[in-house]
Amino acid sequence: MLFVELIRKKRDGKELSREEIDFIVSGYTRSEIPDYQVSSFLMAAFLRGLSREETAALTNAMLNSGKVLDFSAIPGSKVDKHSTGGVGDKTSLLLAPIVAAGGVNVPMVSGRGLGHTGGTLDKLEAIPGFNVQLPLDEFRRILSRIGCAMIGQTAELAPADKKLYALRDVTATVESPSLICASIMSKKLAEGVDGLVLDVKTGSGAFMKKTAASEFLARLMVETGESMGKKMVALITDMNQPLGRCIGNALEVVECVNVLSGRFDGSEDLVELTLELCGWMFFLGRRCASKDEGRSLALEIILSGKALDKFHELVIEQGGDVRCIDDLALLPSAAYREDIPAPASGFVSSIECERMGMAAVILGGGRITKEDAIDPAVGIVLHKKVGETVSAGEALCTVHYNCVERFAQARAVIAAAYSIGAQKPEARALIQKVIQGSYV
Amino acid sequence: MLFVELIRKKRDGKELSREEIDFIVSGYTRSEIPDYQVSSFLMAAFLRGLSREETAALTNAMLNSGKVLDFSAIPGSKVDKHSTGGVGDKTSLLLAPIVAAGGVNVPMVSGRGLGHTGGTLDKLEAIPGFNVQLPLDEFRRILSRIGCAMIGQTAELAPADKKLYALRDVTATVESPSLICASIMSKKLAEGVDGLVLDVKTGSGAFMKKTAASEFLARLMVETGESMGKKMVALITDMNQPLGRCIGNALEVVECVNVLSGRFDGSEDLVELTLELCGWMFFLGRRCASKDEGRSLALEIILSGKALDKFHELVIEQGGDVRCIDDLALLPSAAYREDIPAPASGFVSSIECERMGMAAVILGGGRITKEDAIDPAVGIVLHKKVGETVSAGEALCTVHYNCVERFAQARAVIAAAYSIGAQKPEARALIQKVIQGSYV
Repeated sequence: MLFVELIRKKRDGKELSREEIDFIVSGYTRSEIPDYQVSSFLMAAFLRGLSREETAALTNAMLNSGKVLDFSAIPGSKVDKHSTGGVGDKTSLLLAPIVAAGGVNVPMVSGRGLGHTGGTLDKLEAIPGFNVQLPLDEFRRILSRIGCAMIGQTAELAPADKKLYALRDVTATVESPSLICASIMSKKLAEGVDGLVLDVKTGSGAFMKKTAASEFLARLMVETGESMGKKMVALITDMNQPLGRCIGNALEVVECVNVLSGRFDGSEDLVELTLELCGWMFFLGRRCASKDEGRSLALEIILSGKALDKFHELVIEQGGDVRCIDDLALLPSAAYREDIPAPASGFVSSIECERMGMAAVILGGGRITKEDAIDPAVGIVLHKKVGETVSAGEALCTVHYNCVERFAQARAVIAAAYSIGAQKPEARALIQKVIQGSYV
Repeated sequence: MLFVELIRKKRDGKELSREEIDFIVSGYTRSEIPDYQVSSFLMAAFLRGLSREETAALTNAMLNSGKVLDFSAIPGSKVDKHSTGGVGDKTSLLLAPIVAAGGVNVPMVSGRGLGHTGGTLDKLEAIPGFNVQLPLDEFRRILSRIGCAMIGQTAELAPADKKLYALRDVTATVESPSLICASIMSKKLAEGVDGLVLDVKTGSGAFMKKTAASEFLARLMVETGESMGKKMVALITDMNQPLGRCIGNALEVVECVNVLSGRFDGSEDLVELTLELCGWMFFLGRRCASKDEGRSLALEIILSGKALDKFHELVIEQGGDVRCIDDLALLPSAAYREDIPAPASGFVSSIECERMGMAAVILGGGRITKEDAIDPAVGIVLHKKVGETVSAGEALCTVHYNCVERFAQARAVIAAAYSIGAQKPEARALIQKVIQGSYV
């Protein structure tokens, strides 16, 4: 097989066979096909698109480029969740202990924040000592002991994705639904799960700003997962304002511990999304007969204290300082705090989510390039969310910062992100659509 | 300027500025931009297309990536011809001496054959000793002494094209009109000519099989050349059967010497195209007031023997063994010859040109990869061309070969290339269209 002929085939809009896609992925993973040919192929795939069959074949080839974990020796179902990335989205830290406490295993391989969106690993690492770089054996050991474990991507899982993603990043071939689907699904299915709940964000804070694009991606991922025998469901959820009250790594841990402790006040949207996601995970994991039953179970687990206990176990198992969970004041905290006052009275009509995420990055809480170091302590605590009333001069949010210059920049970005209007804005549904696989 | 942003811009169908295109070409020529980013850009350019302005900017940037020859110190006009490649097309070997003998300089930088099409350099090298790898100083010296010189591409002229072409070749981004235009025009304009005649082939033996595609490319090249102040004309010419009677390097030299000696018999189409091209070259070179006047001058120069004299001078200047020109039997000749008989009586209704070219490659007269060595002696002499009558068993052509196995393969290809029919096929115009620049 000549690779240049496969590029030409895709360039001309023709469909590649499973064998041809295997050839591309295995050849590239083994460095037998050079970057410059693969990048040309990726651009052809970006502009011509990949069919559902090609997308499934690509996902499968990327999945099989490395180890595929097999947790069949661990009793019970294994289910995970994946989000396409948002601002203030800390649901992973909540649902892993909740679902594990409910008896369904959650083997979670997560990512770091990039650009305006945060990452689960960065949030976990705000807990001093918490180690997300565990070898796979240790991951398995913790999972079998406590029912959940949370690590970062390793070189052994879907190595093709690591190479392809790095190449896509520098060749303007990231934003293709098929390539995104294959990237996400190959990594998630390498976790050895039976089912997967997808949280596809839509709106100003999401990578996909339009609902149609989010829905297209969601359907593609559900179909791809199903074609590989997985139980799949995707939720299209609103990301037009930050989720919950906190943005910033340690601040998000604080909010999570509060929710796990049953203190939901001010985090209603976060709690709502978490309960829905947990409901689906319990349903996919065959723990409950319906999503709603699963949702009730999740709430019961939180209120019983079992979820917080499980989070304790997780922190201990992964080397984190559990005293920080008992006394949140021990978590990293910023030297300075300052409120951002409302410029006028009225209703908060919108909070531009991407700007809020970028403000957190400016403060030092996120990264622009993969190499950037991050400050776990900085961030933003929102006091007013969309639809709430505010008086001129009242605090919209509080900025936690360590650098005065960065604060000055971030303040301007935050001020520009809030809009105050005379009318109460129409409420948006948090969960806009549910796309269920036919196995579910 | 971030290169990935320029890829994204082109990917999204937006137009790049001249500065952005300069940045790409100069960055790539200096190896500051890696292959894998440029190949992604090339695929985006291939699929999204480049505007006329972008094409002109790309041509200009590639031209200025290296030396641009300046022959203003040599008196008289400088004009060249470029063909997009065909089978049996040996017009360059004819028109360089004819036009030079008529007082217009022809500084010609040519290529080698690749795939089914032949190359001027390979044909010249069939003359023992003929050196096409001359330094630019020597090229200039010969040009100023005899009015023509014929060399191969050097690393000093349009180095960006060399790098880009090598990359396009392995990334399925060759067949883009804009990229082809920039590649051809950057090299040809680096020759320091005042005018350029383009011979854009169309039909079964051409890279462009459809007239509309050939015409699009021709117009693009004429406009690009004009935008850079050059006198331009393009001829769309038929390449549905081989040009002239001979295919194969030494055999084509024989045919050329015959034509330069006034022996036109059997080479009528070759002579016709040569006279037309010379006519335009004399017109563009301001030697004649019209193409037709130029055409008459070309014929007069051949019949006077001045063209053959000039070819003698050229061979001597470039180190070739001129005795081979006086006695064609001294040119490399093949060990074996065999006729291909007509399977039936009738009219030759078509000769599939690409197959005939590939038959010459199979015999060893051309190359599939750039590294292949070639056998100058082998080839095919056509006795019957399209529209001529033939009796069953009569020779359609004679194959000159050195390897019996290669001959067996080539014979089958040649036999399949000829079609014999009961009806005389409709004659095709050799010159299908002329596209004149507005300066002409």
